[in-house]
Amino acid sequence: MQFVLAEALPVLERTPRVLGELLAGLPEPWIRATEGEATWSPFDVVGHLIHGERTDWIPRAEIILSEGEARPFTPFDRFAQFEASRGKTLAELLDTFARLRAENLARLRGFRLTAADLERRGRHPELGPVTLEQHLATWVVHDLSHLGQIARVMGKAYADAVGPWKAYLPMLGVREGPTA
Amino acid sequence: MQFVLAEALPVLERTPRVLGELLAGLPEPWIRATEGEATWSPFDVVGHLIHGERTDWIPRAEIILSEGEARPFTPFDRFAQFEASRGKTLAELLDTFARLRAENLARLRGFRLTAADLERRGRHPELGPVTLEQHLATWVVHDLSHLGQIARVMGKAYADAVGPWKAYLPMLGVREGPTA
Repeated sequence: MQFVLAEALPVLERTPRVLGELLAGLPEPWIRATEGEATWSPFDVVGHLIHGERTDWIPRAEIILSEGEARPFTPFDRFAQFEASRGKTLAELLDTFARLRAENLARLRGFRLTAADLERRGRHPELGPVTLEQHLATWVVHDLSHLGQIARVMGKAYADAVGPWKAYLPMLGVREGPTA
Repeated sequence: MQFVLAEALPVLERTPRVLGELLAGLPEPWIRATEGEATWSPFDVVGHLIHGERTDWIPRAEIILSEGEARPFTPFDRFAQFEASRGKTLAELLDTFARLRAENLARLRGFRLTAADLERRGRHPELGPVTLEQHLATWVVHDLSHLGQIARVMGKAYADAVGPWKAYLPMLGVREGPTA
């Protein structure tokens, strides 16, 4: 599928509502479930998404638009949420994520990106040259990847409870996608 | 995590709303995306979930409660949705799924299941003896597994669009969980 900004935006807009419907008010064991040591719970994932809103998606888009490849992106801290989420409730995190996402999509729309803008390049500290279009497509896939992760972490919490059905539920046996 | 009916119900209740927020009104390419031949689109998955509401989860629970292991479950048709969904819109399927799920959870609550009921057994045509608790846990994991599948199918639609970021997005490289 080709990247089309007008098709990507509806996915990005939906993520806070999807996570809200999935997680808000759920019994605590679901929220805190992990896949084992050094893996993330749904609570941790929401914190990670917040950190992306603050430091990754729009800030890097702005670097691409203002400085191009001249300035490499600041490396992303994949563990920042452990400190930032401390003492907060899931409801607070979901609200924060929804607010930041709405603000960031307003900023993205404000760029009034042209097809030529989407071809502009930045420099990833490890991956090298990347286009704005690739960056925005990654934003979408990153959302979906972490939604899939939350579904998987929750599902695996019942890996024993399903008994013999485990054989029919491949999700229970693997660790695809982000774990931590 | 132990199966607790009062914790399982909120997950089952949320699935229609989660899928509604994720899929309703999305541009058609997302709805029809697949992972290749003989794999399912988000549209197909919703049809599959509807078929489960009609023929699997509550009907099998009723067999367990009324006939125990004496009568094996009717095998589940994993392809019924292709005929049943033909000519329908996604909005219609989402509405149907939400209505059937609400009815089925009302029936489940109506059973007023005890701890002893959860240990009652039925007979799966391939897996052999299974408990009602295992059956209900599987209902939850089945929902989550297909939510993860939809997220993965959508994410993989941008597998090329993300360019070099593909290396950081394990979901794009694998087929975990149900494909068809």
